[in-house]
Amino acid sequence: MLKGIVTVSLKQDVLDPQGQAVLHSLQTLGFPEAQNVRIGKSIEVWLEESDSQKAESRLKEMCEALLVNSVIEDYSFEIVED
Amino acid sequence: MLKGIVTVSLKQDVLDPQGQAVLHSLQTLGFPEAQNVRIGKSIEVWLEESDSQKAESRLKEMCEALLVNSVIEDYSFEIVED
Repeated sequence: MLKGIVTVSLKQDVLDPQGQAVLHSLQTLGFPEAQNVRIGKSIEVWLEESDSQKAESRLKEMCEALLVNSVIEDYSFEIVED
Repeated sequence: MLKGIVTVSLKQDVLDPQGQAVLHSLQTLGFPEAQNVRIGKSIEVWLEESDSQKAESRLKEMCEALLVNSVIEDYSFEIVED
């Protein structure tokens, strides 16, 4: 079985209030070296598929159909054996 | 400046209803090869620090103090130039 690991992040111009909240907490907790925080998603998808090229193209379709909101998010992925 | 990329995932035994919902949607949308989905977080932290070994140890402290709930989550991270 193959596993796709999709990393979804907010586009650079999109505000990330959750990241700002975490940044503020880190600074309060004694980590002044933290300069910025952005929070995204890591989505693992297990695929009943042995051909990694086919898996790659299907995973791309999944990202575009459901996993990623391309208006505000960017994504990248890798396919690994699992 | 260095950037830490922390990937936080639910431990294997912890239920992931969000992942199950996405799995169900993928199957409904015509992706029967999707067998399982787990959803985690990808946290980018920019650090005012040039020593990557120091950055690594501080990032580990941040994970343990705030970013990760070690009761239900596992994490891994990498440090990159940014």
